[in-house]
Amino acid sequence: MLAASSEVQIDNDEVRVTEWRLAPGSATGHHTHGMDYVIVPVVGGEMTIVAPGGERSKAQLAAGKSYFRKAGVQHDVLNETSTDIVFLEIELKA
Amino acid sequence: MLAASSEVQIDNDEVRVTEWRLAPGSATGHHTHGMDYVIVPVVGGEMTIVAPGGERSKAQLAAGKSYFRKAGVQHDVLNETSTDIVFLEIELKA
Repeated sequence: MLAASSEVQIDNDEVRVTEWRLAPGSATGHHTHGMDYVIVPVVGGEMTIVAPGGERSKAQLAAGKSYFRKAGVQHDVLNETSTDIVFLEIELKA
Repeated sequence: MLAASSEVQIDNDEVRVTEWRLAPGSATGHHTHGMDYVIVPVVGGEMTIVAPGGERSKAQLAAGKSYFRKAGVQHDVLNETSTDIVFLEIELKA
C-alpha cells in the first residue's frame, strides 16, 4: 500500500497537531497511540480500520465533526475509497 | 450584531471541543480565553478581530490549517463577510 502523508502543524509542551492525508489506496501503517487524542476530519469520507487481530471495520468521517480517543488504541487506517481522506490528529501531551 | 452559535462536541477531563458558527453579520461577543487553545478552521474565511482597546484586525482562515494560542487572549470575533465562518475551538484543560 501507499504510505499516508503527514505534516506537523503545531508541536509544543501541550499538544501536537498533525495533518494526515490518505490518498486512495494508502494506509497509515499499524501504530499504537501513545497519547490521548482528538480527530478533526477536514473532509468527509470513510476510513477502513484494521485492528491488531486483523478485524476490519468502517468509520465515517464528517468534516468538522470531532471525536476523542484514549491512549493505547492500536490500529492501521486505510483509505479504500476513491477520494482523499484528510484529518487533523490533536495529541494531548499534558 | 447577531450572536454566533456554538455546540460542544467533546467535554472531558482533558479537553473541550466547541464548534463555532458565525453567520454573516454575527459575532462571538467580547471574551477572555481561560485556557490555552487550538483553532481548526472547518471552512476558509476571514475573521475580524476586535481587541479590548477597539483596534480591528483581519485574520485569514484556511480549512484544516490549525493554530495555537495561550490562555489570556481577549477579543471579539466578527464575521463581516458574506459566508459562514465555521471553526473548532479545542481548549486544553490539563
